[in-house]
Amino acid sequence: MKPPIKTLWWEGESLFLIDQRKLPEKEEVIEIKNVKEVWKAIKELKVRGAPAIGCTGAYGVVISSLNIKTKNYEKFIEKLKKDIEYLKTSRPTAYNLFFALERMEKLIENFKEKNIEKLKKEILKEAEKIYLEDLESCYKIGLYGSDLIKENMNILTHCNAGGLATTGYGTALSVFFVAKEKGKNFHVFVDETRPVLQGARLTAWELEKTKIPYTLICDNMAGYLMSQGKIDMIIVGADRIAMNGDTANKIGTYSLAVLAKYHKVDFYVAAPFSTFDPFIKIGKEIPVEERNPDEVRKIKGKYISPKSAPVYNPAFDITPGKLIKGIITEKGIITPPYSTNIKKFLSQ
Amino acid sequence: MKPPIKTLWWEGESLFLIDQRKLPEKEEVIEIKNVKEVWKAIKELKVRGAPAIGCTGAYGVVISSLNIKTKNYEKFIEKLKKDIEYLKTSRPTAYNLFFALERMEKLIENFKEKNIEKLKKEILKEAEKIYLEDLESCYKIGLYGSDLIKENMNILTHCNAGGLATTGYGTALSVFFVAKEKGKNFHVFVDETRPVLQGARLTAWELEKTKIPYTLICDNMAGYLMSQGKIDMIIVGADRIAMNGDTANKIGTYSLAVLAKYHKVDFYVAAPFSTFDPFIKIGKEIPVEERNPDEVRKIKGKYISPKSAPVYNPAFDITPGKLIKGIITEKGIITPPYSTNIKKFLSQ
Repeated sequence: MKPPIKTLWWEGESLFLIDQRKLPEKEEVIEIKNVKEVWKAIKELKVRGAPAIGCTGAYGVVISSLNIKTKNYEKFIEKLKKDIEYLKTSRPTAYNLFFALERMEKLIENFKEKNIEKLKKEILKEAEKIYLEDLESCYKIGLYGSDLIKENMNILTHCNAGGLATTGYGTALSVFFVAKEKGKNFHVFVDETRPVLQGARLTAWELEKTKIPYTLICDNMAGYLMSQGKIDMIIVGADRIAMNGDTANKIGTYSLAVLAKYHKVDFYVAAPFSTFDPFIKIGKEIPVEERNPDEVRKIKGKYISPKSAPVYNPAFDITPGKLIKGIITEKGIITPPYSTNIKKFLSQ
Repeated sequence: MKPPIKTLWWEGESLFLIDQRKLPEKEEVIEIKNVKEVWKAIKELKVRGAPAIGCTGAYGVVISSLNIKTKNYEKFIEKLKKDIEYLKTSRPTAYNLFFALERMEKLIENFKEKNIEKLKKEILKEAEKIYLEDLESCYKIGLYGSDLIKENMNILTHCNAGGLATTGYGTALSVFFVAKEKGKNFHVFVDETRPVLQGARLTAWELEKTKIPYTLICDNMAGYLMSQGKIDMIIVGADRIAMNGDTANKIGTYSLAVLAKYHKVDFYVAAPFSTFDPFIKIGKEIPVEERNPDEVRKIKGKYISPKSAPVYNPAFDITPGKLIKGIITEKGIITPPYSTNIKKFLSQ
């Protein structure tokens, strides 16, 4: 299971990661050897995407353990915990980061042998486990999803539910990567995804990198393509999924789902189990974050509108379950009725 | 009838126009006194929008006539015609430019008095007539369209069917300008309109200039706004209208019309009679121009995608008449069935 995109990896005693801020212009790999640099890589968005951030945090703890020189076990643990707390401050809202770091904390607390060298090995093992778990669940999403791809299909995707947001397979893009591994022929339309342009910058780069034929379009062109019968299926990722199937994802997803309904195009969501929120019953309960108006007013640092233009900039929208043909997960494709079927899948 | 946007105007012996390439950053007015500068203003897109280009061409003939110093009538006509031919080369596909210049040629040919000074006056009169005719038909579109605007409505528009594309009232935007003159309260959502961003750059500027409350959004946000009941009506312009009501307009218009249908939002087109093409029966007969892929790959000269990203970049799309509630013209609002009602209106 070699990831199609090398987002981040451990080699020797260093963490390597691709600097995502410089994509697609430059592919710059950074070698990270100390905790401060891990913190900066997360803080400064060199690495982004919740699962990718979580893994980076976990390897951050490995790096911390390798840099602590004391032979006193208590002092070792004290310094390690201090670094973990420090790493938590890199992106205060990243759920996966806390999840990974808390898993590390638990490991440390449960380790009873008081042997520094042995603990270091356990920490590395746990980080590798977090990495591999993500790789595996993304790969399985690809396995199930790729069965949907028929010969010479044209599939549209939005934003970047790609390898770069995870340890290398992605969610929606994993479907394409695995379909390609299976030798299928197909073509992808990529929405540029304003305002932050994750489609144009990252998804286009990933498909180019993996030699999957694609065409970049502006978000407002998708409907016209559908009217010409040029889109056979849509697959997007998800930020959070309610227990009735309502899905929060990057702004623009909802419009695509309505256009798909009108043109009778199948609309799928690809997401791991960790995206389902058991505490959220329906989409309306999901809070929608409004982001900085300058994301809309400026592109690459230059204003494209009057400088004080009033702006509405929701980061994502809610697509009702009734517009979703299926949700592709690591345990198979969930189909309606979601209110009963999501529960069944999650309890498997 | 003072135009809300001063796109271009004649004063003393000069043509003045706002340099649209510099908007919205800078409002730079250029004074034009010779034919070469008129040619350059059109060629270099300082002035854009078919009716605005047509008027500029007409005033170009006035400027030509003022600059020819000979007192020999035949030589005067010869030089004048040479300038007209030269002006025709400024934008080879602009229908309104040829239309205006050919009207000038006809005037010159039909002028029998052989008096240079009198002819100069007639040329200026004809240019003023072309200018006023556009101003009047746009204003009437505004008059009829503004009746649709109810108190506190939220109206969405796409691209720039504005004063800048005409002599100052615009088509879709004329509805807003006249509604404001009538003292109505309403708010406009402006689609930024990728790839060329005419909404963010020009429509936002026009609404700011005329103090009409507006909010700028990315194209992919409109559907989500409709799902929240935040859009009451949509008004767009048109590039060409078939005799069955199918409408070619800026890419993204079709998606809006489908989204409007799904959310039961009224969708209107605003356009003068000159936009209806009597030789085109249905939308499918309208050729859709594909433009330079770099319009999508680059924004303000900077790449936003891989440099060689394959791109699909249609300049406009076709909205079927069945999705259009009414077409606002200078003689009233045409409603379905379009196949019979468009003919009736045009022959009035």
